[in-house]
Amino acid sequence: MQHYPKLLETWHRVHLYSSSCSVLGWDQNCVMPPAAAAFRGEQIGFLSQLAHQEMSSDAYETLLKKSFDEVAELGSLDPRRRNVERALRLLKREKSLSAELVNDWSRATVEGQTAWEEAKQKRDFSLFKKPLQKIIALSLQRAELFGYEKTPYDALLPDYEWGFDSQKLDEIFVPLQAGLTALLRSCQKRDDISFRELGTGFSPALQEQLGRELALSLGFGFDDGVLLTSSHPFSTTLGPRDFRITTRYSEKDFLSSFSAVAHEVGHSLYERGLPQEYLGQPVGSASSAGIHESQSLFWEKRIAQSQPFLKAWTSKFRQAFPEQLAKLSGDDLYRQANRVRSSLIRVDADEVSYSLHIIIRYELEKALINERLPLDELPQLWNEKYQSYLGITPSHLGEGCLQDIHWSCGSFGYFPSYALGHLFSAQFAEAMEKDLGSLDRRIEAQDFGRIRQWLKDKIHSRGASFDSQDLIREVSGRELSIEPFMIYLQQKVGTVYQ
Amino acid sequence: MQHYPKLLETWHRVHLYSSSCSVLGWDQNCVMPPAAAAFRGEQIGFLSQLAHQEMSSDAYETLLKKSFDEVAELGSLDPRRRNVERALRLLKREKSLSAELVNDWSRATVEGQTAWEEAKQKRDFSLFKKPLQKIIALSLQRAELFGYEKTPYDALLPDYEWGFDSQKLDEIFVPLQAGLTALLRSCQKRDDISFRELGTGFSPALQEQLGRELALSLGFGFDDGVLLTSSHPFSTTLGPRDFRITTRYSEKDFLSSFSAVAHEVGHSLYERGLPQEYLGQPVGSASSAGIHESQSLFWEKRIAQSQPFLKAWTSKFRQAFPEQLAKLSGDDLYRQANRVRSSLIRVDADEVSYSLHIIIRYELEKALINERLPLDELPQLWNEKYQSYLGITPSHLGEGCLQDIHWSCGSFGYFPSYALGHLFSAQFAEAMEKDLGSLDRRIEAQDFGRIRQWLKDKIHSRGASFDSQDLIREVSGRELSIEPFMIYLQQKVGTVYQ
Repeated sequence: MQHYPKLLETWHRVHLYSSSCSVLGWDQNCVMPPAAAAFRGEQIGFLSQLAHQEMSSDAYETLLKKSFDEVAELGSLDPRRRNVERALRLLKREKSLSAELVNDWSRATVEGQTAWEEAKQKRDFSLFKKPLQKIIALSLQRAELFGYEKTPYDALLPDYEWGFDSQKLDEIFVPLQAGLTALLRSCQKRDDISFRELGTGFSPALQEQLGRELALSLGFGFDDGVLLTSSHPFSTTLGPRDFRITTRYSEKDFLSSFSAVAHEVGHSLYERGLPQEYLGQPVGSASSAGIHESQSLFWEKRIAQSQPFLKAWTSKFRQAFPEQLAKLSGDDLYRQANRVRSSLIRVDADEVSYSLHIIIRYELEKALINERLPLDELPQLWNEKYQSYLGITPSHLGEGCLQDIHWSCGSFGYFPSYALGHLFSAQFAEAMEKDLGSLDRRIEAQDFGRIRQWLKDKIHSRGASFDSQDLIREVSGRELSIEPFMIYLQQKVGTVYQ
Repeated sequence: MQHYPKLLETWHRVHLYSSSCSVLGWDQNCVMPPAAAAFRGEQIGFLSQLAHQEMSSDAYETLLKKSFDEVAELGSLDPRRRNVERALRLLKREKSLSAELVNDWSRATVEGQTAWEEAKQKRDFSLFKKPLQKIIALSLQRAELFGYEKTPYDALLPDYEWGFDSQKLDEIFVPLQAGLTALLRSCQKRDDISFRELGTGFSPALQEQLGRELALSLGFGFDDGVLLTSSHPFSTTLGPRDFRITTRYSEKDFLSSFSAVAHEVGHSLYERGLPQEYLGQPVGSASSAGIHESQSLFWEKRIAQSQPFLKAWTSKFRQAFPEQLAKLSGDDLYRQANRVRSSLIRVDADEVSYSLHIIIRYELEKALINERLPLDELPQLWNEKYQSYLGITPSHLGEGCLQDIHWSCGSFGYFPSYALGHLFSAQFAEAMEKDLGSLDRRIEAQDFGRIRQWLKDKIHSRGASFDSQDLIREVSGRELSIEPFMIYLQQKVGTVYQ
């Protein structure tokens, strides 16, 4: 092999660019003073552009093609062959766009975000309408150039989830919506059930101590990890031994920051488990956005918000917050953490209604892209779907169709991955229990070593060698199904609503 | 002008590289987990190398020379002409080194730092001797290639202070040493004077509050500034509106972190005052290391450790630390903060003895470079000079000749700038008082606006348009002298030792 090693050098250089950008982004979110934003944008844009130039150059294309000849003889699962195949697939997508479209896109999405922020703040859709119209028009151009079999929306999905099209998503989301709406209604009917509020005045410093202890107990270390605060919790990886997560602290709700830590630890454990020897290379990255989300949801919902987990931690919570929690049991905490309520804001939603928020966005973005839904109809249609699936209607656009940033960045096709994450997580957990026996018993014993190892062996260490549907088939032995998720939810709801 | 605008573009690109490196360095010192160090080194090395390549390319040299033809007609103080002249001066220095020497140098100084750290920790000079020998040999090679009139050491000084040679430094440091040693001895004789200790148990959180209030009151804002902690306090600038400073908190000594904040604010106010329109260009940077240090020392020593300042802050200190400070007056704090004591560690030294530490290092590094002082004699000679100038002898090498990192990085010629900073600061302050009247009265009134404006007009906004000796002449109307510093010190010592 003569060219493949040169390819590895290129990827390493690009990884140095992109990981440096990630440091700049981390600092921007966690440390940077507000007035520094404009220049930070310029720094990140500059370094991203250099990485992009390397990855879309003719020299890179030639190197990739010559490397393909070298690895074509290898077994189809050989990571070197997979590396080159994955890279060719991405390059083909990249190269199908004209330089002009790339520029227009980048300008339109920057303008889109600025307009969206103002529109959301002023609750005025008209401020966002024109920029969004532009982004949709450019998305359609992109879709045409990427190419698709049935609908243009299908051409946008591979940015987040290779192997899915809207037909496949419909097959999943139609029964999922019906099942979830029914389950939500059954909870809402139980007005005989009461919940015990947690009180308020939870000190951020003590929440941080608990968060650090939680992170450690789940397997996130501080020799190679950092926990800080940011306005929206996130996880990022800045180098082979540099894992960062954030949360935020509300004095009114310690369980929210606690859950956010578990969620971000889940993302970070995935990144910690990726095959280190392929770091910065196509197969060394995550399989898909949905698989990534499945890992965070597993640790947040399946572990940290489970009954045995919250029971095991109750004495620690009480030590930290004796006044607020003196009269609450582990069961009270568990029921409060998993209470099911129709709500208008996606990021605050419970496990039952969350995917309904997603399905609404999925249906709307399909309509925007495939059916050219007139933008004037978007706010009204949004509200109608909320009434139909969740039984509530936003009182203003800030809690309606202006709540999420995604469309303003042009991320059409991203939302489905959030709901798929729930499904993947449940199907992985089912497979895990077949191998390891009862999860709850391990949680009771606070014994997470085998669980982590199973996830690492079956999912993390495989990197992007499998696309998400192939991975779920490989790990669980069957196609992706809503069944494990619905069974898990019904059981959980049963214990919460006795 | 056709080429000069292209030059500006190059400098802007290089500024994007270098400021991104600064973000990586800031994160490394303040946030990064320990295990991430190796990869961070690789990221910084990669981006620095790219900047270096641009700034040493033949294309850059051609562009500079063509730009010079364009600006040669302009007045000698025109910033565009100065920009090109400064850049040519630096490029000439850069180009005089062979690629091989640059590589050897970078390897030797990395090895030097590793060896020095171990040697310091084990107090074993033999571990550092060989790497240091190599660095000295390479420094001599560099000096030969840079060129010099009298001694090779003179060729190394321009990295920190253009326009100085060792003859000039001798003229300054010989009388300075005599004056300071005499002043130190006079203080040491006053064993009739007693000082009141400050106590201990100063909460870091309250120290941080005071530090932030101090920074604000001196003119450091948090809309475009950040204060964090690091093991060694420092100041860095990451963009046109992105100023960062650090301190560290000792529960035993709140005045130390307080002074460190004032010191780093001083550095940062200099950077805030640099001519924004020339940012990232030669004239948009600091005049010299010594001038930079003069600005930090001015705010630390002349302002924050002055009698009126500490008196004005006493009630705030008492509110924060009522137990420890109940019985102490502003005068007690002032005398404690400015107590003169022979000590072995440079960074902990008072204002009288500090420059003696520097002069010892200066004399030794001259001997190492110009007279090939055998390294075996270094530890002994170090101790003899401490005995002679400061009247004390280190008990081990960690507090002797292994205490500072500078030589292990090859920074021969850096130390003098620290002492020059004290001299510049005093001479600037003298000139300032001629213009603005009594400084102490403004400090009493906590009125720093006119002081800041004076510094900005006379020093900061001039960037690197003047080398340090030209700047001091321009601002004070005379050559650099030790007189203002000695007068200031004698007055201060007089009030401390009544």
